[in-house]
Amino acid sequence: MSDFAALWAEIAGVGRAPGGGYLRYALTPPELALRDWFRAQAGRRGMAVTEDGNGNLFAWCSEPWAGGTVLTGSHFDSVPHGGGFDGPLGIVSAFLALDRIGYHRKVGIGAFVEEEGGRFGVPCLGSRLLTGAIAPDRAAALRDRDGVTFGEALGAAPAGHLPQITRLSAFVELHIEQGRALTTPIGVASAIWPHGRWRMEFTGAGDHAGTTRMTDRRDPMLTFAHTVLAANAEARLIGAHATMGRVEAEPNATNAIPSLVRGWLDARAADTGTLDRLLEAVIKQATERAGRDGTELSVVAESVTAEVAFDTELARRLSALLGDAPILPTGAGHDAGVLSAHLPTAMLFVRNPTGVSHAPAEEAGVADCEAGVAALARVLEALT
Amino acid sequence: MSDFAALWAEIAGVGRAPGGGYLRYALTPPELALRDWFRAQAGRRGMAVTEDGNGNLFAWCSEPWAGGTVLTGSHFDSVPHGGGFDGPLGIVSAFLALDRIGYHRKVGIGAFVEEEGGRFGVPCLGSRLLTGAIAPDRAAALRDRDGVTFGEALGAAPAGHLPQITRLSAFVELHIEQGRALTTPIGVASAIWPHGRWRMEFTGAGDHAGTTRMTDRRDPMLTFAHTVLAANAEARLIGAHATMGRVEAEPNATNAIPSLVRGWLDARAADTGTLDRLLEAVIKQATERAGRDGTELSVVAESVTAEVAFDTELARRLSALLGDAPILPTGAGHDAGVLSAHLPTAMLFVRNPTGVSHAPAEEAGVADCEAGVAALARVLEALT
Repeated sequence: MSDFAALWAEIAGVGRAPGGGYLRYALTPPELALRDWFRAQAGRRGMAVTEDGNGNLFAWCSEPWAGGTVLTGSHFDSVPHGGGFDGPLGIVSAFLALDRIGYHRKVGIGAFVEEEGGRFGVPCLGSRLLTGAIAPDRAAALRDRDGVTFGEALGAAPAGHLPQITRLSAFVELHIEQGRALTTPIGVASAIWPHGRWRMEFTGAGDHAGTTRMTDRRDPMLTFAHTVLAANAEARLIGAHATMGRVEAEPNATNAIPSLVRGWLDARAADTGTLDRLLEAVIKQATERAGRDGTELSVVAESVTAEVAFDTELARRLSALLGDAPILPTGAGHDAGVLSAHLPTAMLFVRNPTGVSHAPAEEAGVADCEAGVAALARVLEALT
Repeated sequence: MSDFAALWAEIAGVGRAPGGGYLRYALTPPELALRDWFRAQAGRRGMAVTEDGNGNLFAWCSEPWAGGTVLTGSHFDSVPHGGGFDGPLGIVSAFLALDRIGYHRKVGIGAFVEEEGGRFGVPCLGSRLLTGAIAPDRAAALRDRDGVTFGEALGAAPAGHLPQITRLSAFVELHIEQGRALTTPIGVASAIWPHGRWRMEFTGAGDHAGTTRMTDRRDPMLTFAHTVLAANAEARLIGAHATMGRVEAEPNATNAIPSLVRGWLDARAADTGTLDRLLEAVIKQATERAGRDGTELSVVAESVTAEVAFDTELARRLSALLGDAPILPTGAGHDAGVLSAHLPTAMLFVRNPTGVSHAPAEEAGVADCEAGVAALARVLEALT
């Protein structure tokens, strides 16, 4: 068994649900078990482990936060029933890359908390806190589906901005590619599409499904359904991505017209202008339909991330180091996108043959994962 | 305070959720508390209480199940966040009606279990079991949202068919009206529309919301949304009622295309032919859209109830007794509909000024409720 396959097997069962997907929500037992594993791996290699008061964990070969250190790593948390590669691949590969180049370098490995936003709703929460992109009190008050706040799960008020992040010379995140654009084992990221998630609340009048005349109804499920179809159609027209994959109805009973339907819009586009036009078109259609249904609509931006262009020079350098690896953009958000505003940042992608991600079928081949370790080792060696 | 207001106040707080709606699922603590209250009320009046092994409770003035007994009563369970009148009004009114006419008559009061189907999915489960309309092993295996079976909640295998039901001379259920059709305090039911609930499962391919090209998607939320709008449009065209008020998505994450969306169709019409045509039209539209979306559709009938015409002679007699009370049909299902196949059955409706039901705003005025008690007393007196 390769060193990759052996180390990967140590975590492959953690948080795996029937059906093959993972339930590794931030700060729940499976993700806490992965953090313990992280500490143990660091310990085996004589690396010091620090926490930043925001839920992010770091292992260091050298002095924590020393000037000129290159940070690598990724996250452990998953979307509900997501794949096992999205996040953990970058952390496992980081330890293995250090095994190849030795531990005498200025290198740190980060495990960022709540990258997916799968528990508290705001993606990249750990890196946003660390860089001051979200106020600690706002983050502390975010609630999961059971009403537990991020502050409660963390056990303390988040520490917020750590100025020492800018002392680092670079952040390099290795990640499984999440589309089908990469046809070689390894690629380098050019940019992350601007993207965001918007919570849309459709309010109507709860009533009896059997006895309420169709003309007397104010059914918010209709407005939601129209908005789902409008978001899809507008995204196709405009060349963007729109998804409404999460929905909650109240009271959610078969024989009751709902009083409230909540739907989340995930929208992404190659540039901010296109994303803005998409959002505007979807809200316009939803509002018009609400007028016809006698319902009301409110829209809250839960998180909006501007376009991220990674450091062009660094991307070119890494591509050259890796035998002219292709440079490509992605529609997926990453902690690297948040950190890129504060220090030179790059991403390495490992090929994903089916392109599936955020689902149990997400998979990278072992040979490609080993190529990823070798590539990351090469990059860390060159940058330190 | 009237006797009605005083007795009503005893149960008004049981299972009341913030927001004013009720969470009185069958065999959960609030509904069990109402059963204890039922036993106490029967005890105060010297009535014997029996259970039928199916979860239905009975209080008897005379020998249980004696030939010629008139049964009245209703149910305690609610839809999630439903109103407080739907069900309990018929039980409270029954005790008060007996207070007026005395306890020397052949009268029983029933409290049927799981009338709404809000916990285990099949409405009128108690009366279906009692009359043999559902097999005890099928009922026992029905699961609630937490995976608990009806058999487990009941604590035993259901007893099933009780032949003695046909010894009774009549069943009369008093119930709040659930539409705006009744403009006098009291009405008499003529019929229940044929109706049913169908679980529709839309299966697609779970994937990443950010990176999956629109043309590569097989998103079941689109097929669900189209079906919601189709059900509404077809019901309006055909003069029927259709509602999709309950939905579940998997994994239900903002940044994931769902792999599965489950939606429930509640459909009702004045006659079986219309209901059949409605269902056929909705499934046709859903199937066509699934073809375009690359998704798959399966439909399971969770319960289908044929048209119920109540005993015409009995309805006319009650209407005459009550000063020519109006005789009207309803789109709502009731235990009386199930029992009507086995013994002469009638329903009394109490006016509902707003017509709202299955929602916190459901309300009948105290004077109308008192008129309901007087009407039920008059009817029980005349029939025994």
